[in-house]
Amino acid sequence: MSDQHRPKWTRLSKETVLANPWFRISHDRYVLPDGSVGDYHYVDIDGASMVVPLLSGDELVLVRQYRYLFRRWSLELPAGGVKQGAGFLETAREELQQEAGYRAAHLERIGEFSPYNGASNEMCRVYVGTGLTRAPLSPETTEEIEVLTLPLAEVRARVARSEIWDGMTIASLHLFESWLGGR
Amino acid sequence: MSDQHRPKWTRLSKETVLANPWFRISHDRYVLPDGSVGDYHYVDIDGASMVVPLLSGDELVLVRQYRYLFRRWSLELPAGGVKQGAGFLETAREELQQEAGYRAAHLERIGEFSPYNGASNEMCRVYVGTGLTRAPLSPETTEEIEVLTLPLAEVRARVARSEIWDGMTIASLHLFESWLGGR
Repeated sequence: MSDQHRPKWTRLSKETVLANPWFRISHDRYVLPDGSVGDYHYVDIDGASMVVPLLSGDELVLVRQYRYLFRRWSLELPAGGVKQGAGFLETAREELQQEAGYRAAHLERIGEFSPYNGASNEMCRVYVGTGLTRAPLSPETTEEIEVLTLPLAEVRARVARSEIWDGMTIASLHLFESWLGGR
Repeated sequence: MSDQHRPKWTRLSKETVLANPWFRISHDRYVLPDGSVGDYHYVDIDGASMVVPLLSGDELVLVRQYRYLFRRWSLELPAGGVKQGAGFLETAREELQQEAGYRAAHLERIGEFSPYNGASNEMCRVYVGTGLTRAPLSPETTEEIEVLTLPLAEVRARVARSEIWDGMTIASLHLFESWLGGR
């Protein structure tokens, strides 16, 4: 088993195909041990943080935003990409404030996952936010995002009915339930 | 609330930036109601299917594969992109056979999610496979993929320890646990 777990692909080159304010599309050339060379295109990004904002009484704070690629509104946990110079924890704190309008006395890291590991190098760290107090939202944010407070049972029901269909939110809820069960 | 849930972005144009055997990178130009125009780059793909292969005795079949973008091996549920002309169910059946070496008497759809909805239009449908019988793996597959059978409790423990770190697998396990709880 050990042999099989050694990395087998070696990068030969990397170029940026395009860049926007959120990520880059990069193109690697790699070589396999048998000498064959291949191309790998991917979303090249500096990681993300997602927060499970937990109010007393087992209520969660979620945000509804428009997802252009699906032409649908989506109910999700607050999240965002790590900006240059910022860390995962700082990003979690900022997104919680900017998207959901809350500050957390405690942000506890409960796990991490790669949302799309075949085509993105993003690793998303997941935090539970507790000791929440309201912080003002900017008018720009309120125009784009609707904040909802829902009991955990209702969140579970919406996942079961596919009304919550964001994979990162569902994965984070799974880590949250695991954390909740272990408390 | 109704007004806020109407689509607000209108596509002006779409071009393919690049294409590989798995997906395209596309570039849309869109316009907002205020007339401002923007660019959207994304992974353009025809959907995916993921299977939770459930053996009698509450064991799951998982596959370990190398994830180049993380230079690590990853333990995941069998999954794959929907190929042109194939449907989600057919893709689920094929991936279960090709990656895990099993055929399922029953494939039940238990939900769907978008793994990476900010930068990919992929929707992943999730199936539970039951009535499993072994089907031969091609030598090519066995070289790249290691098949593991694990009790559900062990899968849960590996998620909690971040040893399973594929977001799509974690989201699918969440839908599976919800399905299991509702049976």
